[in-house]
Amino acid sequence: MEGVDYLRDERQKAQFDVEAMKVAWAGSREAFQLSDRMANLVANDPAFEKFTRPMLDRKELLKNTLRKAAHGWKLIVDLRLTQEEAKWLRLYIDEPAYTDLHWGMFIPAIEGQGTEEQKKKWLPLAQKMQIIGCYAQTELGHGSNVQGLETTATFDPQTDEFIIHSPTLTSSKWWPGGLGKVSTHALVYARLIVGGDFHGVHGFIVQLRSLDDHSPLPGITVGDIGMKFGNGAYNTMDNGVLTFDHVRIPRNQMLMRVSQVTKEGKIVQSDVPRQLIYGTMVYVRQTIVADASKALSRAVCIATRYSAVRRQFGSRNGGLETQVIDYKTQQSRLFPLLASAYAFRFVGEWLLWLYTDVKQRLAANDFSTLPEAHACTAGLKSLTTSATADGIEECRKLCGGHGYLVSSGLPELFAVYIPACTYEGDNVVLLLQVARFLVKTVSELGYKTPVGTTAYMGRVASLMQNNCVVKTAEGWLNPGAIVEAFESRAARMSVRCGQQLAKFENPEEGFAELSADLVEASVAHCQLIVVSKFIEKLQQDIPGKGVRETLEVLCYVYALFLLHKHQGDFLATGYLTPKQASLANDQLRTLYSEVRPNAIALVDSFSYTDHYLGSILGRYDGNVYPKLYEAAWKDPLNDSDVVDGFHQYVQPILKQKLRTSKL
Amino acid sequence: MEGVDYLRDERQKAQFDVEAMKVAWAGSREAFQLSDRMANLVANDPAFEKFTRPMLDRKELLKNTLRKAAHGWKLIVDLRLTQEEAKWLRLYIDEPAYTDLHWGMFIPAIEGQGTEEQKKKWLPLAQKMQIIGCYAQTELGHGSNVQGLETTATFDPQTDEFIIHSPTLTSSKWWPGGLGKVSTHALVYARLIVGGDFHGVHGFIVQLRSLDDHSPLPGITVGDIGMKFGNGAYNTMDNGVLTFDHVRIPRNQMLMRVSQVTKEGKIVQSDVPRQLIYGTMVYVRQTIVADASKALSRAVCIATRYSAVRRQFGSRNGGLETQVIDYKTQQSRLFPLLASAYAFRFVGEWLLWLYTDVKQRLAANDFSTLPEAHACTAGLKSLTTSATADGIEECRKLCGGHGYLVSSGLPELFAVYIPACTYEGDNVVLLLQVARFLVKTVSELGYKTPVGTTAYMGRVASLMQNNCVVKTAEGWLNPGAIVEAFESRAARMSVRCGQQLAKFENPEEGFAELSADLVEASVAHCQLIVVSKFIEKLQQDIPGKGVRETLEVLCYVYALFLLHKHQGDFLATGYLTPKQASLANDQLRTLYSEVRPNAIALVDSFSYTDHYLGSILGRYDGNVYPKLYEAAWKDPLNDSDVVDGFHQYVQPILKQKLRTSKL
Repeated sequence: MEGVDYLRDERQKAQFDVEAMKVAWAGSREAFQLSDRMANLVANDPAFEKFTRPMLDRKELLKNTLRKAAHGWKLIVDLRLTQEEAKWLRLYIDEPAYTDLHWGMFIPAIEGQGTEEQKKKWLPLAQKMQIIGCYAQTELGHGSNVQGLETTATFDPQTDEFIIHSPTLTSSKWWPGGLGKVSTHALVYARLIVGGDFHGVHGFIVQLRSLDDHSPLPGITVGDIGMKFGNGAYNTMDNGVLTFDHVRIPRNQMLMRVSQVTKEGKIVQSDVPRQLIYGTMVYVRQTIVADASKALSRAVCIATRYSAVRRQFGSRNGGLETQVIDYKTQQSRLFPLLASAYAFRFVGEWLLWLYTDVKQRLAANDFSTLPEAHACTAGLKSLTTSATADGIEECRKLCGGHGYLVSSGLPELFAVYIPACTYEGDNVVLLLQVARFLVKTVSELGYKTPVGTTAYMGRVASLMQNNCVVKTAEGWLNPGAIVEAFESRAARMSVRCGQQLAKFENPEEGFAELSADLVEASVAHCQLIVVSKFIEKLQQDIPGKGVRETLEVLCYVYALFLLHKHQGDFLATGYLTPKQASLANDQLRTLYSEVRPNAIALVDSFSYTDHYLGSILGRYDGNVYPKLYEAAWKDPLNDSDVVDGFHQYVQPILKQKLRTSKL
Repeated sequence: MEGVDYLRDERQKAQFDVEAMKVAWAGSREAFQLSDRMANLVANDPAFEKFTRPMLDRKELLKNTLRKAAHGWKLIVDLRLTQEEAKWLRLYIDEPAYTDLHWGMFIPAIEGQGTEEQKKKWLPLAQKMQIIGCYAQTELGHGSNVQGLETTATFDPQTDEFIIHSPTLTSSKWWPGGLGKVSTHALVYARLIVGGDFHGVHGFIVQLRSLDDHSPLPGITVGDIGMKFGNGAYNTMDNGVLTFDHVRIPRNQMLMRVSQVTKEGKIVQSDVPRQLIYGTMVYVRQTIVADASKALSRAVCIATRYSAVRRQFGSRNGGLETQVIDYKTQQSRLFPLLASAYAFRFVGEWLLWLYTDVKQRLAANDFSTLPEAHACTAGLKSLTTSATADGIEECRKLCGGHGYLVSSGLPELFAVYIPACTYEGDNVVLLLQVARFLVKTVSELGYKTPVGTTAYMGRVASLMQNNCVVKTAEGWLNPGAIVEAFESRAARMSVRCGQQLAKFENPEEGFAELSADLVEASVAHCQLIVVSKFIEKLQQDIPGKGVRETLEVLCYVYALFLLHKHQGDFLATGYLTPKQASLANDQLRTLYSEVRPNAIALVDSFSYTDHYLGSILGRYDGNVYPKLYEAAWKDPLNDSDVVDGFHQYVQPILKQKLRTSKL
């Protein structure tokens, strides 16, 4: 029954213009069209098939990825794709590869930290892929604490070179993607030693492999670190281990935009502000938040479509069973995730604006908003990636037993996503950074006006005093009431942390002792940001029949779901009465009923191809069971009726001849 | 540096007798010795090596499992192991295999549902493994709702046979472990049709494969359903798909202990009470709770040891960095899981007692405690498996980046564990069953005395009225205060659900509408059970220096952690004031400091071999980094310096010859 749309009835229930929602999701019509074109280019090219991926062993898996990366690069060159198009193309190929690090870390780092001369030399090589680079920062013994890196770069004034060396086992570079088997060059972060003194951690461009035969250069030991979580997932990436035995590189391969080492061994600081790196951080974290909405929306799309296909219980008189999407327990787990996907999308859009703003200010030597922007992006990175990782697994559970099959797409999506909670700042470490900033903001309230996402702290007196005035369930359908509730909760939690910290003689000891509570205050602050930005988005012009109204419902679902989940905070701070919390929960149930008819159309609006979704359960046409059945037979175990090993290891048991058989 | 114990200092900090704690954990000295003997038998036998597992493709993986299963069976026979010993042996082999279903489902089902004659015929064959059986219940379209199964068993009086048939695609048996490639027989659940009428779902023994050449019998289509979550995990199991095309079996292959079909096509009910199946359910779920404590304790053991090895930040004057286990954020995530592992262990122990009690009552035709026992085990299965699944992933995150490596053991532990949230009753569906029982209990309070774990409901009036009287942080170190807090919360939430339900004209509609809230009330009830049973355990005789005292600390950690996490419930029901909730949280922080010196000894007390743990991060000796480094080089990608695919797919890019090369 190819061509039949089993979800047609569901699609006809939609109360809004799906095409307009696609544009709202993408950000603009142009953005939608570009993304859509690249998605289809990949989906329609059999070279990018990914169904067989889980059946490949490690070597075949990597070889397959190298093939796809080469094919992708060929398309980029042949079709003369723009950088933006190329980025989307790689995204839709949907397979971690060395190219991610080459384009996403190696090149941007040279752009950001290299001098004009260095950029002129290295960027053209990298952009034509005549060299392939990776980003070698973390070490076996060192992750979050960059200042603890042990690799050394010792300046030798006699030869005008740096000697890159791994003095200990724990100094081995460990994790860098693309390092293990592919990269020809690495950007190596190492402790700079000049004249016997340590001068901080800096980046150095080091060639690792011969450009002729690809063999490791003398003094370089390099390899892959082994299997990671999942069948395919990041096993398509050659995360690597690397040690140096006194490897010499020319002095001009230290990235010197900020600090220079002269021929004479002097350290010279340029007039480029060190804060520049924060600009890059804002950029990178903005892309991580964007990726979170992408990953969560994929999972939600799969779980939502399958929840409409799957029926269980509730059959009367032998009729059809109830669609599981109609159960309130399913809705109360699924719809908040659907709302979160949209919330993260819009906060990501706002972060892109923030990045532009920060960049402009930096160019004008205005650093005033940097600490706030830095705290805000750190917090949002942590909040959205944690929620997405948990959300993908929740979507898998919402698909019941079949969600455990690789062909559901969800196991791979989970396994490939979760590193986001750890890389670019461990999520808990980041929340502690946010907490530090919040506590500082509170302590300075007397003489310093909080800016940006902490501006609400300026109204701390009234936020501490005035409690919620909502009296009915409908009373919660009020953006003002919602924002004030989240502001009061966040402000009260931060102030309370400040008060508790004040009891300690040594502030650092207090910070350590109270860190679990500080993390909770950070979460409250970050949730406020996401809620506020969603509400602000709804105040913009959003064309299309029913689009704004539908998004409003999602915005309320997101906010009231959080309010219910964290009602302990709202009650403990005295802002809400139990009655008001209960009214919010009543309203939430009503909202689920409003989401229900729009659910399928809301996930259709992500406009994901079946190729990108990579899920039989999430198929656009809902034709799940026949396709699951078909797919099963493609497992290599089904090549023969009698399985390898039967005669050796099973038959002797059945025939009671185990004692005499060789195992 | 083999032989050095890098965790020796940690072990010397312990304030209790580790050997005595091992006995407390195992349940008795005999249980400890038996388990320990089997663990070492497996650990010291190279045939059970599991390090290379993630590198095998699907066929090699299954073949390897067949080999291990045969070797295990050989040991069981050669060493004349008891059934109990064999069970532990299989557990420590630590690899899902067809034998799990043969011993754990096929044989027990025949024992429970077969007549004496049937048991006499089939059990000896199965116990000698002359036949291998699986348990074929779930179908492609049917999981939780057993009554919705579509496979039919139609009685043909002319030949005295049943005709087993799959009338639809969705009726294909789907998921049964051991079915895909190994089992010779299946216990097939099907709708019994006699004389054109449907007579419920029953079990039928059906031969699937020839005992000579193992090929599928006529009318049988059988195969593997394909890859599942994780590298190894359940991919060592041949979960299967099976359809029947009018397959005939003799009438005496329907399991007839409860219902019989006579030669003449009459349905006769025996005097065996139908409730018997609840006894089996209590048994199966008790083993699931025991498995939860086992899985969670493994993860906690890995994360705790590695948290003592790993150091990050906090170095002063170039000294050692701080052990991450000393950070309060790490403790506040890790120690509640350590406490949960112990809590689940003891509630599992109690469930074993409950099973004995239920069995004795059934034998005496006393069904009075059955509904309560059924609700209680359903709830505990749900609570402990959900907490364990989340807890394993949390432990992985607590290990930072390295937790993502398969060699950490945590990805596999997660992937292999999570089906427990779905099988034997989806966790949410089970909580709704509990809620139904709680609401019923509340509604009958006027005339029916609640028993067992719901006995506290009998004091509902005082539980609704009296609020918490704790005034200091230390005031929370009081078992009475803790139990009363959890009882009041649970009672108040159930009563409130009852009140809300009463507002609906149609109770079923109300139940559906409020189901998300009902689930929360069930969780409150189940957490109360675990807390109470932990406290009761501490009232028993527990020998060994410091053992009881250390367990008391864990018990308070478990309870106060839950109280803090769910403070919304305690505040919303008015039982606690914000001040009291905050005191509980203060006390919790203090307790973490008391756990800290005992942490390593507490995970040593699980007495897991390095083989069973299967984790480089969790090694007993703490020698993590050298072993991670060694292990990396064993990845097949490191077989050669230049990787497969380089010349074909990377070199043409580097040499700018992509256009002319064949991809």
